[in-house]
Amino acid sequence: MGVTPTLSPLQNKHKTDAMVSSDIWTNDSPIAASRRLWVPRRPAVLVGSFEVLADGQSPNGTSETCDGKLKEAFPNLQSLGPVVLKNKSSHEQLNGANGSCPERSIMNMNGTNGTSYQGNGRAKTLRVGIVLSGGQAPGGHNVLAGVLDYLSERHPGSTLLGFKGGPGGILAKDYMEITQDNMAPFRNQGGFHMIGSGRGKIEKPEDLQKASNVAQELRLDGLVVCGGDDSNTNAAVLAEFFKAKGLRTSVIGVPKTIDGDLKNAQVATSFGFDTACKVYSEMIGNLMMDALSAKKYYHFVRLMGRAASHITLECALQTHPQAAIICEEVHQSNRRLADIVHELADMVAARAEDDKNYGIILLPEGLIEHVPEIGALISELNDLLADTDVAVNCHDSLVTKLSGANLAVFQFLPVAVRQQLLLDRDPHGNVQVARIETEKLLLQLLEVELEKRKQQGKFSGKFAGLTHYFGYEGRCSMPTNFDATYCATLGYVAGVLIAEDKTGLMATASCLDKPCADWSVGGYPLIDMMCIERRRGKDKPVIKKALVELNGPVYGAFEQLRQRWAAEDAYRSPGPIQFHGPTADCANFTLSLELCQGHPIEIA
Amino acid sequence: MGVTPTLSPLQNKHKTDAMVSSDIWTNDSPIAASRRLWVPRRPAVLVGSFEVLADGQSPNGTSETCDGKLKEAFPNLQSLGPVVLKNKSSHEQLNGANGSCPERSIMNMNGTNGTSYQGNGRAKTLRVGIVLSGGQAPGGHNVLAGVLDYLSERHPGSTLLGFKGGPGGILAKDYMEITQDNMAPFRNQGGFHMIGSGRGKIEKPEDLQKASNVAQELRLDGLVVCGGDDSNTNAAVLAEFFKAKGLRTSVIGVPKTIDGDLKNAQVATSFGFDTACKVYSEMIGNLMMDALSAKKYYHFVRLMGRAASHITLECALQTHPQAAIICEEVHQSNRRLADIVHELADMVAARAEDDKNYGIILLPEGLIEHVPEIGALISELNDLLADTDVAVNCHDSLVTKLSGANLAVFQFLPVAVRQQLLLDRDPHGNVQVARIETEKLLLQLLEVELEKRKQQGKFSGKFAGLTHYFGYEGRCSMPTNFDATYCATLGYVAGVLIAEDKTGLMATASCLDKPCADWSVGGYPLIDMMCIERRRGKDKPVIKKALVELNGPVYGAFEQLRQRWAAEDAYRSPGPIQFHGPTADCANFTLSLELCQGHPIEIA
Repeated sequence: MGVTPTLSPLQNKHKTDAMVSSDIWTNDSPIAASRRLWVPRRPAVLVGSFEVLADGQSPNGTSETCDGKLKEAFPNLQSLGPVVLKNKSSHEQLNGANGSCPERSIMNMNGTNGTSYQGNGRAKTLRVGIVLSGGQAPGGHNVLAGVLDYLSERHPGSTLLGFKGGPGGILAKDYMEITQDNMAPFRNQGGFHMIGSGRGKIEKPEDLQKASNVAQELRLDGLVVCGGDDSNTNAAVLAEFFKAKGLRTSVIGVPKTIDGDLKNAQVATSFGFDTACKVYSEMIGNLMMDALSAKKYYHFVRLMGRAASHITLECALQTHPQAAIICEEVHQSNRRLADIVHELADMVAARAEDDKNYGIILLPEGLIEHVPEIGALISELNDLLADTDVAVNCHDSLVTKLSGANLAVFQFLPVAVRQQLLLDRDPHGNVQVARIETEKLLLQLLEVELEKRKQQGKFSGKFAGLTHYFGYEGRCSMPTNFDATYCATLGYVAGVLIAEDKTGLMATASCLDKPCADWSVGGYPLIDMMCIERRRGKDKPVIKKALVELNGPVYGAFEQLRQRWAAEDAYRSPGPIQFHGPTADCANFTLSLELCQGHPIEIA
Repeated sequence: MGVTPTLSPLQNKHKTDAMVSSDIWTNDSPIAASRRLWVPRRPAVLVGSFEVLADGQSPNGTSETCDGKLKEAFPNLQSLGPVVLKNKSSHEQLNGANGSCPERSIMNMNGTNGTSYQGNGRAKTLRVGIVLSGGQAPGGHNVLAGVLDYLSERHPGSTLLGFKGGPGGILAKDYMEITQDNMAPFRNQGGFHMIGSGRGKIEKPEDLQKASNVAQELRLDGLVVCGGDDSNTNAAVLAEFFKAKGLRTSVIGVPKTIDGDLKNAQVATSFGFDTACKVYSEMIGNLMMDALSAKKYYHFVRLMGRAASHITLECALQTHPQAAIICEEVHQSNRRLADIVHELADMVAARAEDDKNYGIILLPEGLIEHVPEIGALISELNDLLADTDVAVNCHDSLVTKLSGANLAVFQFLPVAVRQQLLLDRDPHGNVQVARIETEKLLLQLLEVELEKRKQQGKFSGKFAGLTHYFGYEGRCSMPTNFDATYCATLGYVAGVLIAEDKTGLMATASCLDKPCADWSVGGYPLIDMMCIERRRGKDKPVIKKALVELNGPVYGAFEQLRQRWAAEDAYRSPGPIQFHGPTADCANFTLSLELCQGHPIEIA
């Protein structure tokens, strides 16, 4: 049926910029108030009338085949194919033969071309649920706003329900209605606090049934799940379960994680990665200017990213540090902690020769878990600790039980870290690796190594280190123009897919290196992003975490430049995120994305 | 003599914004490149022709009288009075009777009014030295640029020499010539790295003589000293010494410190405080959005500021945390560490009743030194450690020697901190108080207290804490439009004062709450900011550090609002510093400054 689009009622209910400056005692900062009134850009295809077509030619021309086990796990989802939205009146002329990323001029994004939208599946008004799952990422509120705007514009009278506190909110049937009025204060703001988030999972049969009951009771036409690899895996399971039960509730995923490890041929980037990396890079750039001015400290900066090192790699490209440790490289080359320390010591010694006793070293928080020898040590420690009911005084005897190689690794660690490994255990008795402040560990080991070299006459420089951890600061900052626009777009597209009765898809936007008007949008089957992994002795279909590809263009660029950065002071200070002016959009997205889109490296 | 102003030759030698976006592999970030081309605003009085007049009526109408000891220490400086720059042709009509902060319309800042500048002292070309002293503060490069632009425009052919690595560079005669060409890359950039800084002092008679020799050898007409209270005290000593020796070298101070503790009736704020507070507040605001979204952590944020708590206070006003600890208050009310912990525990328990198990607590790095009982403990520990050659194993016996009250305080501390107090000593054997991570100390003590209350049935909430230290990130960030403009103005005015043969003055700008065009500028005698302090048994003239005034308007505003902030989630997220658009200037300076300028508090 056809519905004439209604533009979202984003009127000036809130203060104007001229007013906020004198209103400093409210809880509204001038920038927060100003951002609230900003209207994200929108791809041209979403402005006028469009249709949703099967996308035989997905942007990369490939579609992975589900193997037998995936087919077995998702019998009801396997016939789904990718879809793409096309401008209804003109897509054939515009897109040419290959259908992807057409080089077309920017259309009027605020106007409509007068024709109406024709869907093919749903009733005029829709009931849609949405949930935010897992850790915060900048832009989450704009996904909610994107779905809401789609419903307001194309299906007036529809209802959007936000489940509170993550997937647990679905099971508890804990939700709130999201309206234009209560949405307005959260537009373009950081955080997930409008509806909250949580780490709950809907996996067990009884939980799937509970979620199914709630979807039926609330008469949901669709459910939008914003999450990382795990949450989107669960979204596929839920889509399958609903379909098998004959429910009308579609499930659509949206890729969210600052870690950047939900990424594949169809998903160029997850939302939040751009903003988080820019917040961290601003701080790193500031430290660099400080290092260069004071000329007396090495700064060790730990960054978020346990499984993958995308953040560290992107921040390295943005800022040009003396060293950046990439877990995937450490793992692949079976690097020992001692190797890493030696390499850093070599760098410090070489710079000291050049009278440079300062520098910046980046490392991901996941490092310690990725050093193979530490993994082996922790594994043996966990076994020994499980066997013994170790009193505090018995640690010495426990340590002597360690095998030769692991004992050597243990003794290489600073005393404080050894104690932490023995004493700081989780409720299951396991060593709490994540609690180890890796940046301090590396600094201490480097101090020992440099002192040794000094006594051997191999190092005559000065060395003083400072440590930093940039983590929580980046998860809830105000989204960049890119993330704000990307999220609003993904939300809008998720709404379209639900209206079209599509399920088990992830909402996607591609051609992100083009102006937003030219972005291509659609949906891609979640199960086509999956593989089978062996977990706890069972085959499990999962969306695999995307690690840093050591033969990919992003790491490739880093590899080409790292030696130069180690020796020279090639620091790059990205500065604070800008929302207006010449630099708000020229650094439109991460360098990682730029490189992945095939832009060449020009080394100056 | 009269010189027609020449505008500074800031041509597009560097990339334009359109170019930098595709040039991501250089060390130039788009924002750094864009900032470089930005031209700071300039007070109207500095645009056309002006004259330097004795300022009988200083902005606050008062001028402290030097007492006898100050007269004794600075016999050659005591006749100096404050000066003010007035627009030559029109100041009488414009300024009315009182001469301060006229409400006039903005003049064309880039044009000149056709008349030429008339100085009354110096030769046509000048030789000026400049030095950056102490810790970095955003805007330092713009002070250099301000002096340079003054010389280029009003005394073409002059020479500006930058002493390298702080005051030590003067003694070592280590300098570089600063030109428009080599200055250009550093305009509006963070850091002090163009010429560096250092903590050296010129105090001892032989150093004063050395500096005097260098000033003579380099034929300096003036020396600009950018520094905090100590460095400006030294600037006065140097001015006195040069004058006594009959040197022609004027010494002019510029107020620099992110700590905000160089402040008095004539100096509204030191440069860098605005930017640093905004960088920290951005991060705190981000943490607040995270706390509100995750609802499971208390974040303890340590901020820079050892002597004074201005930064913590300003950040509290900017962000509205659950608690902010102000050292001056702790000290004045003789608060014990246990009192602070109890107050925090009360706040946490009250919020838990309201189902809010999260929050933000700000504290200054100087806290531990300001708790009177800790001061007493450390003092006794230092004495005991000096008396004994304590082997590692003898600590227990040393502790038993502590007096009763100090022993109780010692035993209240967490084990790790006790060890740190005993083991971590500086080269003189003193306890290294600054090394204690106060945010972790407070968190640990609070955990113990809440556990105790839990067991007494007085606390049933959940409590988990995370700690952060925001320090070095704020010292070298790109200056805000305010700091960039303030610094360029102070530099320009310092140049004027040197050309006018003035010495022993601090360059000042007032009426900072007005548009920049309306700022009033001049110079104020350093010795009129001084008092006599007893240090190491000797009377010493010093510029006193400005502590937070507990009966002042800034602390007053905090006091009015803190209870509300503790209970409610009144978080305010200031967002990243903006250089363009509606919010680049509306939050033009710190709330501390706004309050000090007499703007009323309107509580919403």
